[in-house]
Amino acid sequence: MSIDLQDRWQARYGSAAELPPLPAQGAAVLDHLLAHRSVRAYADAPLPEQALPWIIGAAQSAPSSSNLQAWSVVEVADPARKGRLARWAHNQAHIHAAPLLLVWLADLSRLDRTAQRRGERAGANHYLEMFLVAAIDAALAAQNAVVAAEALGLGTVYIGALRNHPDEVAAELGLPEHVFPLFGLCVGRPDETRPAAVKPRLAQPVVWHRERYGLTEEAEGTDEAAQVEAYDHTLQAFQRGQGLPPVPWSQQASGRVAGPGSLSGRHELRRWVEAQGLALE
Amino acid sequence: MSIDLQDRWQARYGSAAELPPLPAQGAAVLDHLLAHRSVRAYADAPLPEQALPWIIGAAQSAPSSSNLQAWSVVEVADPARKGRLARWAHNQAHIHAAPLLLVWLADLSRLDRTAQRRGERAGANHYLEMFLVAAIDAALAAQNAVVAAEALGLGTVYIGALRNHPDEVAAELGLPEHVFPLFGLCVGRPDETRPAAVKPRLAQPVVWHRERYGLTEEAEGTDEAAQVEAYDHTLQAFQRGQGLPPVPWSQQASGRVAGPGSLSGRHELRRWVEAQGLALE
Repeated sequence: MSIDLQDRWQARYGSAAELPPLPAQGAAVLDHLLAHRSVRAYADAPLPEQALPWIIGAAQSAPSSSNLQAWSVVEVADPARKGRLARWAHNQAHIHAAPLLLVWLADLSRLDRTAQRRGERAGANHYLEMFLVAAIDAALAAQNAVVAAEALGLGTVYIGALRNHPDEVAAELGLPEHVFPLFGLCVGRPDETRPAAVKPRLAQPVVWHRERYGLTEEAEGTDEAAQVEAYDHTLQAFQRGQGLPPVPWSQQASGRVAGPGSLSGRHELRRWVEAQGLALE
Repeated sequence: MSIDLQDRWQARYGSAAELPPLPAQGAAVLDHLLAHRSVRAYADAPLPEQALPWIIGAAQSAPSSSNLQAWSVVEVADPARKGRLARWAHNQAHIHAAPLLLVWLADLSRLDRTAQRRGERAGANHYLEMFLVAAIDAALAAQNAVVAAEALGLGTVYIGALRNHPDEVAAELGLPEHVFPLFGLCVGRPDETRPAAVKPRLAQPVVWHRERYGLTEEAEGTDEAAQVEAYDHTLQAFQRGQGLPPVPWSQQASGRVAGPGSLSGRHELRRWVEAQGLALE
């Protein structure tokens, strides 16, 4: 077990990363979490029949703000429907290849209906706060689903590109007002002939701050610029190993957020969210 | 193992819930996920020293949109600082009692700095899309942290109330522009004399839709009103078992979203997010 964790750690932070002291318990779950990789190559195989109830059960076991459970998920297995959704999401090949696309919804409409049945009104649903509650609830649930799917021997990859054309996605899935398709998740058996690799991440001190956000001179040796530069090299080495052109992370990331034109149409998201009745007041 | 999963399932969905066929693999991880409960009673004990690097390692192993890693976390262990944060969050007793509060940040500022070092500009950061990318990234990471912490024998509870006074939280933590404190997470050893219980959830057909959102007559027997009413009774039975006054979920939930006055000050969130430079265009 300890050897696995060492391998996992170095895959995640680069071969020079120092392993922290091993925990006294929980190594199997930590190993499972650290081993995550996004899978884009799927075998031509159906899901095990019993998988989905357990995946949804894990999702519903995630915490929910005030137990509002402000999310839903649509299981899309019909190849024609999945194909249409794929075409609105950059036509990503893995959406076509995976046997299942789960579409995760920030869903405030159930609260509308619940209040209506009591003769009341969910008058807070158009505030930014409630949009955030629903989006966070959905994300926590989806991540538990990812961890569960991997335990069942399946692979997954999130599809943020479902936000490129939320209007088309909403029409296809028959979404009512106050429901927002947050992201997709492909689920399927990984193609073992094309295994996915664990992607290295920024060193821990870059994201982990002690007591205060570490940009001031108080910060203990957190030199973000140097750490990001080191990560640029780590990621380039990873890309070379994958047969990909080595592009520094800082260049990739900066390009991705350069301006509205770099958002694949999602700079229009606000208009569409408002059209769904969510003013984000 | 199979007996555990049966217990877990019935704790989650009520004693009448029918167990799905058991999976061929992954039972230990599923058992771990389904066993989640939020912990508000903490032992007076420090965290194991080696816990945090593994918790952060698990968090960073969660997927990240375009690998932007648009989140950070602040570890708050100083009792005085933690106490001040608690007072801005309904003065919840468990924030004082837990040895650690992790504050999860939607963090677009690192992308600003990364672009600046290249002589570029992160011109998309003020769009709703990027706010959503950062919030989702942070939530996925935090949920992996929860799963890891529980594997280490720790308990957790999310603190959405940190959004009641985001301006005070930001000042206390020294947050730069384009950073938003999304929620807190208490972490500590559960007080075994006051064990937390698994909270039941809505039945699976309420949140899990097949092919399309199930409100039309096409939907196969998903009667949301009847399922919510059954859940009202399940949750009331749970509350009685906990010595709490039994309030139907539909009443609790409707009250929680009745209007701006039910948001504990968070109806002002939008103004504050804008003041942080996030126009949510």
